[in-house]
Amino acid sequence: MSRITALKTADVRFPTSSSLDGSDAMNPDPDYSAAYLEVCTDAPDGLAGHAFVFTIGRGNDVQVAAIRALSDHLVGRDTAALLDDMGATWRELVHDSQLRWLGPEKGVMHMAVGAAVNALWDLKAKRAGRPLWELLASLTPEEIVALVDFRYLTDALTPDQALDILKRAEPGRAERHAQLVAHGYPAYTTTPGWLGYDDEKLARLCREAVADGFTQVKLKVGADLAEDVRRLGIARDVVGPDIRIAVDANQRWDVDVAIDWMRALAPYDVAWIEEPTSPDDVLGHAAIARGVAPIPVATGEHMANRVMFKQFLQADALQVLQIDATRVAGVNENVAILLLAARFGVPVCPHAGGVGLCEAVQHLSMFDYVAVSGSQEGRMIEYVDHLHEHFVTPVDVQGGRYLAPTAPGAGTEMHARSVTDYTHASGA
Amino acid sequence: MSRITALKTADVRFPTSSSLDGSDAMNPDPDYSAAYLEVCTDAPDGLAGHAFVFTIGRGNDVQVAAIRALSDHLVGRDTAALLDDMGATWRELVHDSQLRWLGPEKGVMHMAVGAAVNALWDLKAKRAGRPLWELLASLTPEEIVALVDFRYLTDALTPDQALDILKRAEPGRAERHAQLVAHGYPAYTTTPGWLGYDDEKLARLCREAVADGFTQVKLKVGADLAEDVRRLGIARDVVGPDIRIAVDANQRWDVDVAIDWMRALAPYDVAWIEEPTSPDDVLGHAAIARGVAPIPVATGEHMANRVMFKQFLQADALQVLQIDATRVAGVNENVAILLLAARFGVPVCPHAGGVGLCEAVQHLSMFDYVAVSGSQEGRMIEYVDHLHEHFVTPVDVQGGRYLAPTAPGAGTEMHARSVTDYTHASGA
Repeated sequence: MSRITALKTADVRFPTSSSLDGSDAMNPDPDYSAAYLEVCTDAPDGLAGHAFVFTIGRGNDVQVAAIRALSDHLVGRDTAALLDDMGATWRELVHDSQLRWLGPEKGVMHMAVGAAVNALWDLKAKRAGRPLWELLASLTPEEIVALVDFRYLTDALTPDQALDILKRAEPGRAERHAQLVAHGYPAYTTTPGWLGYDDEKLARLCREAVADGFTQVKLKVGADLAEDVRRLGIARDVVGPDIRIAVDANQRWDVDVAIDWMRALAPYDVAWIEEPTSPDDVLGHAAIARGVAPIPVATGEHMANRVMFKQFLQADALQVLQIDATRVAGVNENVAILLLAARFGVPVCPHAGGVGLCEAVQHLSMFDYVAVSGSQEGRMIEYVDHLHEHFVTPVDVQGGRYLAPTAPGAGTEMHARSVTDYTHASGA
Repeated sequence: MSRITALKTADVRFPTSSSLDGSDAMNPDPDYSAAYLEVCTDAPDGLAGHAFVFTIGRGNDVQVAAIRALSDHLVGRDTAALLDDMGATWRELVHDSQLRWLGPEKGVMHMAVGAAVNALWDLKAKRAGRPLWELLASLTPEEIVALVDFRYLTDALTPDQALDILKRAEPGRAERHAQLVAHGYPAYTTTPGWLGYDDEKLARLCREAVADGFTQVKLKVGADLAEDVRRLGIARDVVGPDIRIAVDANQRWDVDVAIDWMRALAPYDVAWIEEPTSPDDVLGHAAIARGVAPIPVATGEHMANRVMFKQFLQADALQVLQIDATRVAGVNENVAILLLAARFGVPVCPHAGGVGLCEAVQHLSMFDYVAVSGSQEGRMIEYVDHLHEHFVTPVDVQGGRYLAPTAPGAGTEMHARSVTDYTHASGA
C-alpha cells in the first residue's frame, strides 16, 4: 500500500505583462501564473500527480496557501483508496464543513480543491498508463455518474438522466475514439486578438491563423467601440467571409451597454460574444442573449461552480458553454458541467490559453466527444500559442486541430526546470 | 500627513465546536474564527482601524494570507487620501486586475478586500469620533452614492435611482436618529435553536428568549424531517402563538426537497425559511419561493456580491434579505445592497452571530433605518449570545433590541488579550 507523502507547491509566475500577450479590456497587464501542485507518494513507481490553478499574477501566493491548506486532508492517506473512488474524494474535499465556509464552492478555496482533485486524476492516469481523456472515456456510464455530486443539480439533472445521456453515447464510443486518434479535435485561436497588439500585428497574426488552418479567430473588445469596429474591420478584411470571428469583452459591460455595443459590431458577422458582463449575472446574460440574438452568448471561464452553469443553461443565458480546467473543483465538477451541457443540448467550447490550460482542458473535450455529447458539431477548444514549452507533454495543434494526447496523465506536469526558474521571488 | 505603516494580521480561533454552539445541518462542528486585521498608521492620534473576516476554523490561515496580500496596495499610502474617498479606495482594491482573477468578486480574496475596507471605515469613524452608523448617516445622498460601484447594477439600480431613494429618506433623518438613540433596533435570537442542543436546552432557551423580550426565535432544521417537526413542536409549545419562529436549513436541500420539507413544517407557522439551498441558486430560490409561499424565503449571508443580490431581488427569489458584514467587500458593497433592497422594497434582516458579526452589522441596519429605507417594519438583526466579551465595544441588546452604539468606530476591535490568547497554533 502506498501513502501520500507530501503536497509540494510552487508559486510560478511568467512575466507576460511585458509583451502585452494576454491583454484585454479587464486585464491590461496579466502575468500568467500557476499555483503549482505536486502530489507525492511513497509508491515504488515514483509517480507523482501534477496540477495547478491558473492565475494572472498578484495573489498567486494566496492560491498556493489555499492548496497547501489541503495537506491535512491528503498527506498520510492511502493513495489507492483516494484514487479508486474519486467521487468520494471530491465530496470529502469540497464539503469539508469548515473550508466550505470560505466559498462556499467558489473562489480561491474552491480552485484549490480543483488543483488537488486534478493532481489526483493526473496520478491516476499515469498509474493507468493512459492519457486522462482515454481513462475517463473507458469508464462505464455508472462509474462516470458516480464521479458527480448531484447536490443542487437535481432540478435540472438527476443521476438517472445523466445515466441515460451516457448510455445513449455508449454504442459509438469506439468509432469516435478512432476518429479522435486519426483527426484530433477542432481548435480556434485567440493569438491574433489581444488588445495590446497594434494593427500590423493583428493583421499579420490573422493571416497566419488562416494559413495555419484555423477556421475561427477571436478578438478582444470592450475598451473603445470605435477601436473595436476598426480592428474588427481589419480582421474581417484579412480573413475573408468564411472564417468565423468571435469577440470577447472579458466582463467589461453592463447589460444595456452590452446590447448596444454588440448591435454595432453585428455587421461584421460575429461568431459569438464572450463574457459580455459579470460571470455571476445569470439574468443579465439572459437579457443580453435576447437582445443580441442571433449572435450567441459564450461564457463560463469565470463561472464559479456547477450551480451557476445549471442556471445559465436553465435560463438560456448562454448558447456556447466555456468550461475551464482550473476554475471549478477539478475534473469531477467539469464532468458534471459536461453532462449539464449535454442535457440542454448546448455545445462546449472550452476556455484555454493562460498557462497550461490548453494542455489540461483538451482531455475534457475529448472525453466529452467519446463518452458524453458524442459530437464535435459547433465545438472547438481555444488555442493560444503561449508557454507550452514549460510542459512535459505540450499540446500538439496542427492544421487547426488538437491532436489526441497519447502520453499517460492529464498533461499538467511542468518541467522541473521551468518551475525552478520561474518560482516567484526566489526564481529567475 | 500620516501614512499607513502596516497591515497586522492574526489567525484567531475559538474552540466553539466543543460545545456544539453554532451547530447546524451543514456545519456540525464550527470553530468560530476571525481572520483579524489591524491597519496601523504613523499619525500622532495613535488610532488604528480594526476589522476581520469571520470563518469557522480550518482555512482561517488562508483568509489571513489573502488579507496580507493587500499590504502592497495600502502600506505607505496617505491615510487621509484613502479615507476621504472611500468609493475610489473600494474600486482600487476590488478591481485590481490581477487579484480580481481569484474571484472575481467572490470567496477568499473578495472577503479580504472587505476586511481592508471595513478596517479603513473603522479608522475613519474613530478619527471622526463617531460610531460608524452615525458617520454613514451623516453623509449627504450624493456622498453615499459616491461610495457605491454601480458596475453590473445599472439594469436594476442606477446612480440617479439611488439618489432618489436617499433624498426621499432625507427629511426624516433627525427624527429616526432620535428614535434609534431612544429605543434601539429590533433583534431576534438564534441562541435556542442550534441543532446540537437537546430538547431540554431548546425549551429552556426558548423560554428565556421570550422572557428576555425577543419576539422571534430561529431554529436550525434540515438534517431530519421528523426531528425538525418534533423540535418545532416543542418550540411552538413553549413560545406560544405570538412569537415568530423562523427556520434555517443552511443550504442543505435541493429545490424539490426544500419545497416538500417546508410544506411539512408550515403548520407550525414559520416566519421564514432561511438558506433552503445553494446561495448561488437564484432560479432555485425563485422556484422554492413560489413553492412555499406565503412563507418568505430569507437568504444572503453566503451570497458573494452585489450582483447576486441584484438577481435575487429581480427574480423575487428572496423576501427577506440577509446582509453579512464580512462576506462581501465591506461597508461600500453593503451600502449598494441596502440600496438595492430599498429599490425593490424588500426588508433587510442581517445575518449575525459568529465572532463579532453582531458588533459589525448593527451599524449597517441603523444606517439603513436613518438614511436609506427609513423603516424598521419587518426588519430585525439576528442576535446570538456568543463571544461578545472579546470585543472592546460589545453590542448591548436589551429587551429584544440592539441599543444604538455610541463609541467611535465600527465596533470591530477585539481586546488585544483575546487576539493573543486565541491566536491559532501559538495561542492558548
